[in-house]
Amino acid sequence: MGIVVQNIARADAQVIAALARAGVSTAHEAQGRTGIMGTHLRPIWAGARIAGSAVTISVPPGDNWMLHVAIEQLHAGDVLVMAPTSPCTDGYFGDLLATSARARGAIGMVSEGGVRDVADLTEMRFPVWARAISGQGTVKETLGSVNVPIVCGGQVVAPGDVIVADDDGICVIPRARAAEVAEAAEKRMSAEAARRDRLAAGELGLDIYDMRGRLKDKGMRWI
Amino acid sequence: MGIVVQNIARADAQVIAALARAGVSTAHEAQGRTGIMGTHLRPIWAGARIAGSAVTISVPPGDNWMLHVAIEQLHAGDVLVMAPTSPCTDGYFGDLLATSARARGAIGMVSEGGVRDVADLTEMRFPVWARAISGQGTVKETLGSVNVPIVCGGQVVAPGDVIVADDDGICVIPRARAAEVAEAAEKRMSAEAARRDRLAAGELGLDIYDMRGRLKDKGMRWI
Amino acid sequence: MGIVVQNIARADAQVIAALARAGVSTAHEAQGRTGIMGTHLRPIWAGARIAGSAVTISVPPGDNWMLHVAIEQLHAGDVLVMAPTSPCTDGYFGDLLATSARARGAIGMVSEGGVRDVADLTEMRFPVWARAISGQGTVKETLGSVNVPIVCGGQVVAPGDVIVADDDGICVIPRARAAEVAEAAEKRMSAEAARRDRLAAGELGLDIYDMRGRLKDKGMRWI
Amino acid sequence: MGIVVQNIARADAQVIAALARAGVSTAHEAQGRTGIMGTHLRPIWAGARIAGSAVTISVPPGDNWMLHVAIEQLHAGDVLVMAPTSPCTDGYFGDLLATSARARGAIGMVSEGGVRDVADLTEMRFPVWARAISGQGTVKETLGSVNVPIVCGGQVVAPGDVIVADDDGICVIPRARAAEVAEAAEKRMSAEAARRDRLAAGELGLDIYDMRGRLKDKGMRWI
Amino acid sequence: MGIVVQNIARADAQVIAALARAGVSTAHEAQGRTGIMGTHLRPIWAGARIAGSAVTISVPPGDNWMLHVAIEQLHAGDVLVMAPTSPCTDGYFGDLLATSARARGAIGMVSEGGVRDVADLTEMRFPVWARAISGQGTVKETLGSVNVPIVCGGQVVAPGDVIVADDDGICVIPRARAAEVAEAAEKRMSAEAARRDRLAAGELGLDIYDMRGRLKDKGMRWI
Amino acid sequence: MGIVVQNIARADAQVIAALARAGVSTAHEAQGRTGIMGTHLRPIWAGARIAGSAVTISVPPGDNWMLHVAIEQLHAGDVLVMAPTSPCTDGYFGDLLATSARARGAIGMVSEGGVRDVADLTEMRFPVWARAISGQGTVKETLGSVNVPIVCGGQVVAPGDVIVADDDGICVIPRARAAEVAEAAEKRMSAEAARRDRLAAGELGLDIYDMRGRLKDKGMRWI
Repeated sequence: MGIVVQNIARADAQVIAALARAGVSTAHEAQGRTGIMGTHLRPIWAGARIAGSAVTISVPPGDNWMLHVAIEQLHAGDVLVMAPTSPCTDGYFGDLLATSARARGAIGMVSEGGVRDVADLTEMRFPVWARAISGQGTVKETLGSVNVPIVCGGQVVAPGDVIVADDDGICVIPRARAAEVAEAAEKRMSAEAARRDRLAAGELGLDIYDMRGRLKDKGMRWI
Repeated sequence: MGIVVQNIARADAQVIAALARAGVSTAHEAQGRTGIMGTHLRPIWAGARIAGSAVTISVPPGDNWMLHVAIEQLHAGDVLVMAPTSPCTDGYFGDLLATSARARGAIGMVSEGGVRDVADLTEMRFPVWARAISGQGTVKETLGSVNVPIVCGGQVVAPGDVIVADDDGICVIPRARAAEVAEAAEKRMSAEAARRDRLAAGELGLDIYDMRGRLKDKGMRWI
Repeated sequence: MGIVVQNIARADAQVIAALARAGVSTAHEAQGRTGIMGTHLRPIWAGARIAGSAVTISVPPGDNWMLHVAIEQLHAGDVLVMAPTSPCTDGYFGDLLATSARARGAIGMVSEGGVRDVADLTEMRFPVWARAISGQGTVKETLGSVNVPIVCGGQVVAPGDVIVADDDGICVIPRARAAEVAEAAEKRMSAEAARRDRLAAGELGLDIYDMRGRLKDKGMRWI
Repeated sequence: MGIVVQNIARADAQVIAALARAGVSTAHEAQGRTGIMGTHLRPIWAGARIAGSAVTISVPPGDNWMLHVAIEQLHAGDVLVMAPTSPCTDGYFGDLLATSARARGAIGMVSEGGVRDVADLTEMRFPVWARAISGQGTVKETLGSVNVPIVCGGQVVAPGDVIVADDDGICVIPRARAAEVAEAAEKRMSAEAARRDRLAAGELGLDIYDMRGRLKDKGMRWI
Repeated sequence: MGIVVQNIARADAQVIAALARAGVSTAHEAQGRTGIMGTHLRPIWAGARIAGSAVTISVPPGDNWMLHVAIEQLHAGDVLVMAPTSPCTDGYFGDLLATSARARGAIGMVSEGGVRDVADLTEMRFPVWARAISGQGTVKETLGSVNVPIVCGGQVVAPGDVIVADDDGICVIPRARAAEVAEAAEKRMSAEAARRDRLAAGELGLDIYDMRGRLKDKGMRWI
Repeated sequence: MGIVVQNIARADAQVIAALARAGVSTAHEAQGRTGIMGTHLRPIWAGARIAGSAVTISVPPGDNWMLHVAIEQLHAGDVLVMAPTSPCTDGYFGDLLATSARARGAIGMVSEGGVRDVADLTEMRFPVWARAISGQGTVKETLGSVNVPIVCGGQVVAPGDVIVADDDGICVIPRARAAEVAEAAEKRMSAEAARRDRLAAGELGLDIYDMRGRLKDKGMRWI
């Protein structure tokens, strides 16, 4: 506790952009079906899709002091990722902090805690994925840490990992794997586009994916 | 497990249309205040109102193979109703399956599991009521069944039962009762329209429903 | 049980209007960071912001009879605040009751129970904050009370207390403190406006609030 | 609603006794891995293991009138199975009802609602599996039904179905399948006893079940 | 915040003793079916039954400083009743505080937060009813208040109110009503004893409470 | 996925024994108030206190194949730590696997999934901390991994980390820090013993910890 790591490595901007195009579900498939955060983290408004580098924040319950410390560490395109050291739904983050974070480069936030001023944040189009919406204020008494590995939404997030977030939730991709996952995601999107056309024409997945034989081998019976 | 029932009976299309007009809350009242699924099943976008015949799907946790099997059984106007054999929030259903299901006649889905690609599904205006939104993918390894009775949202759903779903949630109406419930629902709507006008004019329910005497008999005191 | 208190005191209309301008999070800060109801109470549609005087309702589980009794007690600008005597998600309140409540002056509702007809309520722009959306109907068999103190969302609400509600949730302000809180809230809003400009220009909270010294005293380390 | 079915069929006593010996997990496996109720239903004291015929009860929220009606329908060896028509944790059942139910033959209860007087019930060794423990009392105002099919713990229970319950929870076995499931359960128990000895001696499941080849075929790597 | 009320009134010791004899469910019935705290508050060990005067504590999330302040205010026979200002499951209270509280007269604790050292507390036979068991430690940085009214388990608790707690949970009785409720509880216990004998002999509640006529009037049908 | 790491480093046996003596809450304090798993993980029987080296298991939902793979990797004194890749309460582990695991050296299990045969496990005194108790069986179709880092109970667990578990829950201590934490824990236990005596004698924490001045500085008022 009480540590701020100042110089963190980030993934390549082109890789991050490719992952944003892919979106959460595709990026997660491309990384071997891993990295999805828990379904209790929901966007405060619909329609955002972002990818960026994680600036991580470990905070005490009911204390948002470290957010101010974290904002100083932001680069353009970063995503704040915050987790309390024990479960807390307080409104750690609101329109003033969002104004500050955006001015310093942040493009969104993921929070295992609560968020407030959501009408303002919606109007600002500042996207936040959070566990709860709560007007409850916080104090500034106890230290936490910035840019240390944390667990958020049941996933490990290291500083500089790529966060992909959209209406499906959030997927985290370790920085070292980001390029490889982005490439796999692009291939997957091409393949899906072709399949979508066939499915839209009424062809069945049973036939496209050649499933009938294997279903019968397993004992499926049509009656 | 491992069974697909291919020819299921469905309710009359006019009856189903009448139940769609009634909506969830009215249909449920018309059926004697029964059939409401649990409040954890929520629409992924607001404003849909549908009624259709249930094609039921029993799936293992984390395995969506049976959805491909079910899609082959769809008729125009059907609603997919899926329940895992143990609780699971994975993203069993997404835009590719929705494209396929729509091409084969489906008008919506109700799921005791999770759903993904919700931005796409919203753009497609394909309505889904689900327990969770999750990007988490699934496998295709283990058999389930299609068109057998299941429990979804705490209600029994038999194949061919009428599913009514809107922003209030979901109501299931056994096929054999659908005509009778539709008729009762239409009567109820007429009665409500008349009462709505009187209430809008400031008349009190206490007077319209003649409640004051019974309240006093029970001991109500105004102080 | 079985009591209706008919003449309740309300806060000054100008004070209530000032609290509506402040909104939930600011009003709560202005009252010493108290009064926020639990995060399980959510608005059924986004964008409402109201403040009004509480008309409180204690209801049995699954029984909405007292809502009719409460509506007779409404004055213009009031907010219905309802809590069941044991947890219940049934749809106690819907479009007919909203029509009636609005005709008698209500501007919104807060409910520790469920609500239904939410598509209609959204179209009417009648705001409701509730624990659940449920089509499940209720009976009219057992007495409760109107305008007695209740607990809703984990907060005590006395009749005539000021309810502030918006997309952040709900804050309750005891009637006797309303004027003082409104005044503090207005000061807070002015101060925030000035700070927002500085933060938007890229100045850091660390500097604006002069936090660096205290962080170092506590042992914060930048590495 | 408002129906009491008086003469229900029950499974054979020897079959029921065999299922009690098997217990929940084994009975469920023997029936093709189906019938397990949700994990939110827990025993109020540890160590009970029962099997009996279901006398089903559908009750309104907060109203336990039908329990008195159901008790008249009990035969020796029956299990009360109760579900509210909407979620309710009230204390529907306590020591007086347990005294009455036991006097009329009941050997236990499964409840999707709440239970109270659990210290007394524990002293009486009357086993109850319930969703909640709550002192909250109920009223006797609204009808429900007795011995109609209900959904409890996410499973359909028809009157006369066999309920197996122990510290693992509850499994329901349709009456028509009970004999077949009991037989399969006994075979399973014999097979497990043999395997238990080998495992206790340090032999690995990998070898006993001959899993290594299939693991390698799927791509498992030891590093 | 930041207030300690030092001289609080308590109910008569004989009244409190009578309420302890009655226990939670009976005391609650005797007070008109009110006062039951939420079912999420559970005893850490089974078999305790206490009644005592509430010393109330309002604490910030993750900060147990006020417990030390509260312990100085204890009299013999008191019960600590603690609620965080926002939801928190941290282990606010453990064996050291219990040792101190017992030395100053406390006979138990009720906590809307978490508790730890439960093996020690069980061995000490110090009863605690809590929302969670958690080893998570807390800080001592922010003030709260002692002996002000709080909401715990969804009920208002004023300092000096009588807390009755046993395996069924917790019931709070306002000090001013304690004598009257104790008297009603004793009458209820006598009546129940008589009824228990008749029920144990196999007589039905339907007959003892003369319910058959009213059931038929409501439309109950035996088929 | 599909990886088994065979040779993992473990902490020193004496260090592990010291951490077992300390128990969860003390070990967590000694490590700077970190490492506590979520409160949803509870022991299936009361009174166990263990410390051991983690053998980690990542499993698909509803598939316990990897447990057999993991058991081969056990050394004497190890603790199985299992997490599903998406939330699942199925009964992954029961008496047969416990028999096998114990025969190969395991002293307990921590599971983010479900467990079954808890009556047998209790009789065997094999301790398990789990999210749920469920009779629901699992399949053996899909690979996971053994001895890779996982997230369990909201904490990162690497293979060979020390798991301390008792009635307070679970604390994980990274292997590299185990010796240092054990030492700090022993000091803490000595200090607590001395304080316990003073508190038991009626001395106040306010005085022992010299808190009165700081409370007054913060503005505490006794009235």
